Amino acid sequence: MFKVLVLLLSINTLYAQEFFDADFIKKVTTLRDKALTDSTAYDITESLTTEVGPRLGGSKGDARAVKWAVAKFNELGFDKVWTEPVTFPKWVRGVETAQIIAPFPHEIKITALGGSLSTPKRGLKGEIVHFKTIEDLKNADASLVKGKITFISNRMERYKNGKGYGMANGARYMAAKYTADKGGIGAIIRSIGTDSNRDPHTGGMKSVNFNQETGEITLLKKGEVVPAGAISNPDADLLVNVLKRGKPVIFKYTLGSHWDGQYTSQNVIGEITGREKPEEVVIIGGHLDSWDLATGAIDDASGCGITMAVAKLIKDAGIKPYRTIRVVLWANEENGLHGARAYGKAHVDELNKHIIGAESDFGASPIYQFKSNVSDQALPVIAQMAELLTPIGVTYVGNNARSGADISPLLKAGMATMQLSQDGTNYFDLHHTQDDTMDKIVPEEIAQNTAAWIVFVALAAEYKGDFGFDLYKKQ
Amino acid sequence: MFKVLVLLLSINTLYAQEFFDADFIKKVTTLRDKALTDSTAYDITESLTTEVGPRLGGSKGDARAVKWAVAKFNELGFDKVWTEPVTFPKWVRGVETAQIIAPFPHEIKITALGGSLSTPKRGLKGEIVHFKTIEDLKNADASLVKGKITFISNRMERYKNGKGYGMANGARYMAAKYTADKGGIGAIIRSIGTDSNRDPHTGGMKSVNFNQETGEITLLKKGEVVPAGAISNPDADLLVNVLKRGKPVIFKYTLGSHWDGQYTSQNVIGEITGREKPEEVVIIGGHLDSWDLATGAIDDASGCGITMAVAKLIKDAGIKPYRTIRVVLWANEENGLHGARAYGKAHVDELNKHIIGAESDFGASPIYQFKSNVSDQALPVIAQMAELLTPIGVTYVGNNARSGADISPLLKAGMATMQLSQDGTNYFDLHHTQDDTMDKIVPEEIAQNTAAWIVFVALAAEYKGDFGFDLYKKQ
Repeated sequence: MFKVLVLLLSINTLYAQEFFDADFIKKVTTLRDKALTDSTAYDITESLTTEVGPRLGGSKGDARAVKWAVAKFNELGFDKVWTEPVTFPKWVRGVETAQIIAPFPHEIKITALGGSLSTPKRGLKGEIVHFKTIEDLKNADASLVKGKITFISNRMERYKNGKGYGMANGARYMAAKYTADKGGIGAIIRSIGTDSNRDPHTGGMKSVNFNQETGEITLLKKGEVVPAGAISNPDADLLVNVLKRGKPVIFKYTLGSHWDGQYTSQNVIGEITGREKPEEVVIIGGHLDSWDLATGAIDDASGCGITMAVAKLIKDAGIKPYRTIRVVLWANEENGLHGARAYGKAHVDELNKHIIGAESDFGASPIYQFKSNVSDQALPVIAQMAELLTPIGVTYVGNNARSGADISPLLKAGMATMQLSQDGTNYFDLHHTQDDTMDKIVPEEIAQNTAAWIVFVALAAEYKGDFGFDLYKKQ
Repeated sequence: MFKVLVLLLSINTLYAQEFFDADFIKKVTTLRDKALTDSTAYDITESLTTEVGPRLGGSKGDARAVKWAVAKFNELGFDKVWTEPVTFPKWVRGVETAQIIAPFPHEIKITALGGSLSTPKRGLKGEIVHFKTIEDLKNADASLVKGKITFISNRMERYKNGKGYGMANGARYMAAKYTADKGGIGAIIRSIGTDSNRDPHTGGMKSVNFNQETGEITLLKKGEVVPAGAISNPDADLLVNVLKRGKPVIFKYTLGSHWDGQYTSQNVIGEITGREKPEEVVIIGGHLDSWDLATGAIDDASGCGITMAVAKLIKDAGIKPYRTIRVVLWANEENGLHGARAYGKAHVDELNKHIIGAESDFGASPIYQFKSNVSDQALPVIAQMAELLTPIGVTYVGNNARSGADISPLLKAGMATMQLSQDGTNYFDLHHTQDDTMDKIVPEEIAQNTAAWIVFVALAAEYKGDFGFDLYKKQ
């Protein structure tokens, strides 16, 4: 890590002055420092969570959020504000109850996984078959599973960079499918989360087939998947303790979740127009939708707040950028990445005008490191960013960035990217639960996020070269 | 604090050998050390939470808990096991929903306060009038409150000794009464708790009049109190943020809670009979009931587990005590202290045979200090306890103990007591919520509790003098 920085700083000494004049760097530095105590991102996040609240794709909250976003972009003084339609199958949650029936009766906190089909109205009752991991279920003999409710008990581990999530969430994604394949009748999993609250974590599961060529979506039917829910961590511990007694454990749960036709939401977009190359775009943003269990403060009102604040503060500082800064508030990320897909399709002929992009979708804890994914020629610009980011606690760690889910179609098309990594130690305590609320956002921390993003966005939008294209394939 | 200990240790040097022979002290020391890795208390706590679960006074869980306790005392090898009836008005919870209706719709997590009357079936709707503290409501002009729903927003503070609870819970206890007195229609409070989960904290409110002389209980009626609930901390923050907009805030909530006749539960009692003075009693225990929102691990399965384990381990170690060790698992502490009252009444003629007593009702985090309330003559015994408790991290801090609620009638009658204080830093994150579950109990910590209690109980039951009586009035 140190070596990389030294290399970058040497490159920087040689070349950086070619790209930016001293007055511009001074302006950005001043703005960065001002942003450290600025409340714009916090206020936007508070506004979205307080005035709109939960906003699952297709819900009334979704429609309110789109209205809110258009009004907020205008209020913040963006040069252009518009929406682009995003159509997707609408999924609604409904009733959620669960009980251990025998050998000891217990009420269990459950939440449907996103895309789950409903159980029968009076509930689904069966004996539990317990697997420690999704691999154990995958490899199990079908005779063990047939007619039963599967339960996967593996626990997500806590890491600063959040990597425990990827290690654990296969259970959430595949349990219902594997269970159906083996003749099981239902699937419950331990919540994918690091907390010990009785607040289960929702999140998407495999519930559709997606045709990569046509973009067509086919919903999986009963028999192809089973109704699936996550139970809270303490309830999973309880169920494990009950199972230890060695008696048959009878479980019952009722989920009202189901698909309910098509819905058209909107990606909401605001721009600070470039002074020389308005058609060339630095694309940033967060996703406007949230799960329905809470007001979605860290996932992802804060990402919307940070990136809207960055563009507004750059404009207000009188930094008219060379290129356009485009802030996209993505529709329905949570339940299928539909906003991102629609954007990719709508802008297919101008993907190479997206010079570099990033998403903020990991809360608002302090940013502690950043990565790039740019051509070697652009590394001196990254070095200049590193020089401005180091003083606010952000270390450069390499040219191998990935970014938020909504950017992934653009990355696949070859766009350069930046990854500004927040401390994710506590993120998965709250992620996709009823506890993802505004009180979790610390004003000083979200301001530090804004300051870091200002450095990236201001320099990226001012740099007159490109950051490379077709970078995805090189990784 | 240091001075007190030095004083005690000097007294000890002079007198302690008079009370206990060296062989006895050696036995206790060995047992203390063995207890530090013993799982008996943990296992009992796990058994009660897993096999019984929630056990609100008067519920099916209450009846199951009484059965469980009798069986467990017998299984553990207690010399005598019996139950004593405890009759009380039965309160049941029912449906609980709440919403901010305007200016922004939000679902709110609410739970009824213990003893609350129900709202109308379709809910209670009204404008919020906001008070920062219960004193502000108490002092408010009735015209401000009339026809409205009061909301008290003060937040409980976190302290190691839990003193923030006493500072905050007046709001819970009195809000419904004060609101009714001023013509309000409903009362909601910020949960009395230190967490930031959307899991509201229940707990008793003033809902009855208690005649001290006759012991008669009269339920408060509609008009004397209003339906009252606690909303979660994040929801209280949200409501405060909504109120900041300065528009009228319309709130609606539905509580199905109500009184439902009389119920007779049981104090469940187990004894290790004294070898010389079986009629003289060292009384310890925890309360068997719990709130209904969770399995009540820290409140108070762990108190039952610790004190049952202490008596069992003393017996198993071959320490046949001079006096009787009586473990009482108290009925319905949470919703009116009914078990404690019934015991006081049933044993009114033998209160002075209760030589010393204590309750464990503050979770199972490590015990870090202890206090006594004994006569000066008995201080050398306390000094001997201090000598054995210091090596396991428990410091003596003075002769001004109070103990758990269930002991309070005995203390009022003059009984000596000990207070073994657990670290309460995190206790009120969980207290009276759905999160009070077994996964919160750390095996090493509950074992340290057991070890500390063994020192107290073994020495108190062996000491041939008394600890003083009529001590309450001296404090």
